[in-house]
Amino acid sequence: MDELIMKGQKAKKASYILSNMSAQDKNQGLKKIGENLIKRDEEILAANKIDLQNAKSKGISEVMIDRLALNKDRIKAMAEGVFQIIELQDPVGEVVSMWQRPNGLQIGQKRVPLGVIGIIYEARPNVTVDAASLCLKAGNTVILRGGSEAINSNKVIIDIIRESLKETNIPIDSVQLIEDTSREVATQFMKLNEYLDVLIPRGGAGLIKAVVKNATVPVIETGTGNCHIYVDKDCDIEMAKNIIVNAKVSRPSVCNAAENLLVHKDIAIEFLPLAIEALKSNGVEIRGCRATKAIVNDIILATDEDFRTEFLDYILSVKIVNDIDEAINHINEYGTKHSEAIVTESYKASQEFLQKVDAAAVYINASTRFTDGFEFGFGAEIGISTQKLHARGPMGLKELTTIKYIIYGNGQIR
Amino acid sequence: MDELIMKGQKAKKASYILSNMSAQDKNQGLKKIGENLIKRDEEILAANKIDLQNAKSKGISEVMIDRLALNKDRIKAMAEGVFQIIELQDPVGEVVSMWQRPNGLQIGQKRVPLGVIGIIYEARPNVTVDAASLCLKAGNTVILRGGSEAINSNKVIIDIIRESLKETNIPIDSVQLIEDTSREVATQFMKLNEYLDVLIPRGGAGLIKAVVKNATVPVIETGTGNCHIYVDKDCDIEMAKNIIVNAKVSRPSVCNAAENLLVHKDIAIEFLPLAIEALKSNGVEIRGCRATKAIVNDIILATDEDFRTEFLDYILSVKIVNDIDEAINHINEYGTKHSEAIVTESYKASQEFLQKVDAAAVYINASTRFTDGFEFGFGAEIGISTQKLHARGPMGLKELTTIKYIIYGNGQIR
Repeated sequence: MDELIMKGQKAKKASYILSNMSAQDKNQGLKKIGENLIKRDEEILAANKIDLQNAKSKGISEVMIDRLALNKDRIKAMAEGVFQIIELQDPVGEVVSMWQRPNGLQIGQKRVPLGVIGIIYEARPNVTVDAASLCLKAGNTVILRGGSEAINSNKVIIDIIRESLKETNIPIDSVQLIEDTSREVATQFMKLNEYLDVLIPRGGAGLIKAVVKNATVPVIETGTGNCHIYVDKDCDIEMAKNIIVNAKVSRPSVCNAAENLLVHKDIAIEFLPLAIEALKSNGVEIRGCRATKAIVNDIILATDEDFRTEFLDYILSVKIVNDIDEAINHINEYGTKHSEAIVTESYKASQEFLQKVDAAAVYINASTRFTDGFEFGFGAEIGISTQKLHARGPMGLKELTTIKYIIYGNGQIR
Repeated sequence: MDELIMKGQKAKKASYILSNMSAQDKNQGLKKIGENLIKRDEEILAANKIDLQNAKSKGISEVMIDRLALNKDRIKAMAEGVFQIIELQDPVGEVVSMWQRPNGLQIGQKRVPLGVIGIIYEARPNVTVDAASLCLKAGNTVILRGGSEAINSNKVIIDIIRESLKETNIPIDSVQLIEDTSREVATQFMKLNEYLDVLIPRGGAGLIKAVVKNATVPVIETGTGNCHIYVDKDCDIEMAKNIIVNAKVSRPSVCNAAENLLVHKDIAIEFLPLAIEALKSNGVEIRGCRATKAIVNDIILATDEDFRTEFLDYILSVKIVNDIDEAINHINEYGTKHSEAIVTESYKASQEFLQKVDAAAVYINASTRFTDGFEFGFGAEIGISTQKLHARGPMGLKELTTIKYIIYGNGQIR
């Protein structure tokens, strides 16, 4: 606990320096980090080897081990990610708007760093580099709490980052790691209101739920995506097929992948056999409603639970709906307000869907897979917010800042 | 508990209708509310009389009773507040920005209502009308939980609001009151994540602290203001005196009032006797540091605690600092990141203060008392945020909205 408070104090102190540094200075730090990651890759790999051995002896799943595992190429990719962040425009300092009041006061909104950001994440050591670099670029100090599986890799990576900062003007306490990976310390971290300005969890549904439940610090909830593709009666069937196949199979394990297909009843007989065949030939298991099963028999009958589930796998639930209203209501009730798409040639239907669906990203005639900071053109991504406060959808550098009001007077009193 | 969930469900359902209503329809509802408040003022006063009798029999303070008490003029002022909200521009529907990606996707950010807003407040029945009207105008449904002292007044006011909505197309469940004012129900309300998109506490430090501690719903923290006026060595002494007097005495009970005066040592001997005399003649008790007491003897010696206290009263703590850096560091350590001001004729000092002070509103040569939605020109205010997520400083209608990404494609897949 005392260690946590000390880290909080150091982070806050460093943030008052870092938040006033120029983009040039911050980029210098990032450059050193990228270079030293490559230079010292053997050290990282040695530590990662220990993590992998521990993981295997604990019988951890192959998927988890793949997330944990580093090699020279992956380290190079991490470093290149840092070099890319250097190229991005620094959002800090922009005066977003400024106006004059009748009494002569000039009131402006200036973009400033959030301050101290906490990140809680799981077994992926690349998050350590990625999150630290993005926070730095936006002028924030960061306290990282990674999963126990990656602790040896993380320790070395953080050493490299902090020693890189030593070669620059950036305070080394701009980046700190919580080395005690116990659950108690994590819970205390979530309540570090005096020092943390925001806490961002990155990981699975369990982690995010725990953070939302326990944190007293402001949280940005990220992640869960129970996404739908709704195929309207007036649509380009070929386009619809391509979109659902892409949204489901191009990368099933990510949050912007589709988990559900909704089909208007008037087009179901024509569309579903084609679509389901294409999906099946890509290895997708179909769980359909009764009406779907009446059209394509060789599928599993979906339960209500299936429609609520983010499979993150080669599984898709399918439902036939009577009209667009039923589709919209279903999405608003069963969805997680992440990414939702309609495929239609109807102007009216497209506008109604756009207006009434309550989600971070609503698409007309495109795959939900585009909900991503890079695909949106932000050049980076710290996560995808599924809450409505502060940031919604993909979060880039701008979402790691806040504003302060700056007011120029000449003696005004009230 | 069940009642709370039912209210949550109704609010969520109503929000899907209200969020798609035109400004015209919403204004029609507000007009009816304002008219009916005036028409039915006798009913409100009768209920308020019961609240006042209960309060007096419980021996509640005069200040609290003044906040609770209504009369015809106060009800008229409440109604006029509603009519003013009609005049404000509806923030919903604005496409804040839109851009095209190389693949042809058009990505836009559209301003939409937050959804369901919870408001927890204390004894002031005017908050009931004010908060409900602002939420409605921005397309949000609202669940209100006022203090037990005002429950009879609130019940009648909410009846009037809901019956007013009945005369329009707005769902009556757009505005609901939690009638059970127990602490247990309040705590459950703070954890109503499935239905509440945001919770805004309005009231004293105790209430806000309880909400931050207990809520699992996203919260916008409002309120506490331990504000400073820093008088730099190069300043217009008359201006500095006017600003500190205004910031302290024009309304000591509000969060944007100054609680601390910091003075550069080089100007202290000239400035402090003048300033303290002016403050004392306005009834202000001075609690100064040792150096201050050496210049003006007839004051109380300040404790460290005094510098951390939001007095909300005719009390001011005074400290002499060696330079602007000490002033900035003191503010960043002791302040609550609300409103901070420098009085200076130095360009360099003004820019340094603006840059380095970490607060929602930073002033050059003006009173901190301007931190207010109306003074900023927003035409309304739901509170003053002292956190950094989502909104910082005075929150108007715009801060009661979020954005959603709208994406126009023509078959893009990834």
